[in-house]
Amino acid sequence: METAEHARAAHAAIGADEALSARYRSGASDAAGPWNEILAALLDHRSVRAYLPDALPDGALERIVAAAQSAPTSSNMQTWSVVAVEDPQRKARLARVAGNQQHILECPVLLVWIADHARIRGLSAAAGAPVAGLDYFESFLVAAIDAALAAQNATVAAESLGLGAVYIGALRNDPETVAAELGLPPHAAAMFGMCLGWPDLARASDVKPRLPQAAVLHRERYEAGALTDSALAAYDRDMMAFQSEQGMAPAPWSATALSRFRGPESLSGRDRLRAALERLGFPLK
Amino acid sequence: METAEHARAAHAAIGADEALSARYRSGASDAAGPWNEILAALLDHRSVRAYLPDALPDGALERIVAAAQSAPTSSNMQTWSVVAVEDPQRKARLARVAGNQQHILECPVLLVWIADHARIRGLSAAAGAPVAGLDYFESFLVAAIDAALAAQNATVAAESLGLGAVYIGALRNDPETVAAELGLPPHAAAMFGMCLGWPDLARASDVKPRLPQAAVLHRERYEAGALTDSALAAYDRDMMAFQSEQGMAPAPWSATALSRFRGPESLSGRDRLRAALERLGFPLK
Repeated sequence: METAEHARAAHAAIGADEALSARYRSGASDAAGPWNEILAALLDHRSVRAYLPDALPDGALERIVAAAQSAPTSSNMQTWSVVAVEDPQRKARLARVAGNQQHILECPVLLVWIADHARIRGLSAAAGAPVAGLDYFESFLVAAIDAALAAQNATVAAESLGLGAVYIGALRNDPETVAAELGLPPHAAAMFGMCLGWPDLARASDVKPRLPQAAVLHRERYEAGALTDSALAAYDRDMMAFQSEQGMAPAPWSATALSRFRGPESLSGRDRLRAALERLGFPLK
Repeated sequence: METAEHARAAHAAIGADEALSARYRSGASDAAGPWNEILAALLDHRSVRAYLPDALPDGALERIVAAAQSAPTSSNMQTWSVVAVEDPQRKARLARVAGNQQHILECPVLLVWIADHARIRGLSAAAGAPVAGLDYFESFLVAAIDAALAAQNATVAAESLGLGAVYIGALRNDPETVAAELGLPPHAAAMFGMCLGWPDLARASDVKPRLPQAAVLHRERYEAGALTDSALAAYDRDMMAFQSEQGMAPAPWSATALSRFRGPESLSGRDRLRAALERLGFPLK
């Protein structure tokens, strides 16, 4: 398939009412506000879990990473890296860590986003200068957040090209195996993966509804009752309708949330994450 | 000043060569690749630390938060919230936590991005269902990363409207004071702030150079020597040139990085972050 053909797959810019209705369903407000093509693109995001085998266009990955590097980074410290994996065998091994998610096999590129203190540890070793501040929880969090900001810019950039993306948090099921597979040095750990590729529009998913804005946006101070019982019930219904439309078994969001965090056994091995990060060189003091 | 006048302040879409040269300076490559207005906007990001007093346009904040909610979120759990602070006295008190950053006083809106387990803890209490999985480090990290993904979408959305933004990591200097100021419930903590407003173009800053892409983007496996000595020296020179142009005291990036992480005393109080989060209801198991 040619790139020109793929490009037509990119979503045309949609209007505000349509975009807000898709995102909030029964929770949508009809308040007026500004609108433009970038807002349209952001609101139209959907995670892509079905890919065509075609490669990315030449130079696309480099432009996507340039967008990622253009994201804000705490004190310009840039404590992240990204590993682009295209080798099918390596992708298959990483997919096994991530519960055998089929889209990791399908997508032409798996990006693995790294919280990376190794670069500054290297400067420290060369200069004989202490960097004991890196041992603290704060410094790990800076790296994790900076990797996330960069990755989200990459997502927006990829989608602007008509590509699809999905985050793979399940690489955290076993960060030590991922580190070994990617040859990470000490003081570097995968925060999440990201599939990139051309969406298979025959298996496309729709925009997923979110909680009403009033549940998430607080004014001046946090309002504990912001998610009312009736708004929660409406959202549970909206999510079940969405799942039915997508051919998934419907379940109320509130029940899914309780199940997701039920206990250590519901975390797919990630109850061991803190110990794994400590072994990988993040003391998390 | 009228909104129409502000809108003209939005950057016109720039070309790929110009954008990549500004972002990478001596580290720019001249490889070809795709380009569009969204990539142009992402690469043209600069943090804004000088604001006009004018308010945001009606409905802009709601559209920005809709963009934030459209960002990916782990398993659709949406474990984040945002508090929009406009009250000048409250902003002033939060600015004191953040080392008296003047732009917090200047900007019309300070967003405070919250890692929020309180919403799901509330479901748990109502249902009598256990959520012991929230006690784990992994579940805190999900909330922090999801808040970051949402916030970066908000940044892109705001900039698309001609607004400026800057992250305020220094709210982590004292998360307990921030929690008290914002009335956060247990199991919720501020990850960072974000100033939003109209840039004062008379005091505008330029695009900040980043490390060369070869230092950050790895292929198949992590390459330990990706940041070569000569590339580092060139970046140090580029950053010093940038700082001189901006009227700042020039310092090599490598020296700044070593100083930034020198030890607990260089973390502005954030060496206590882990204990503060534990007290705010994140056991971080």
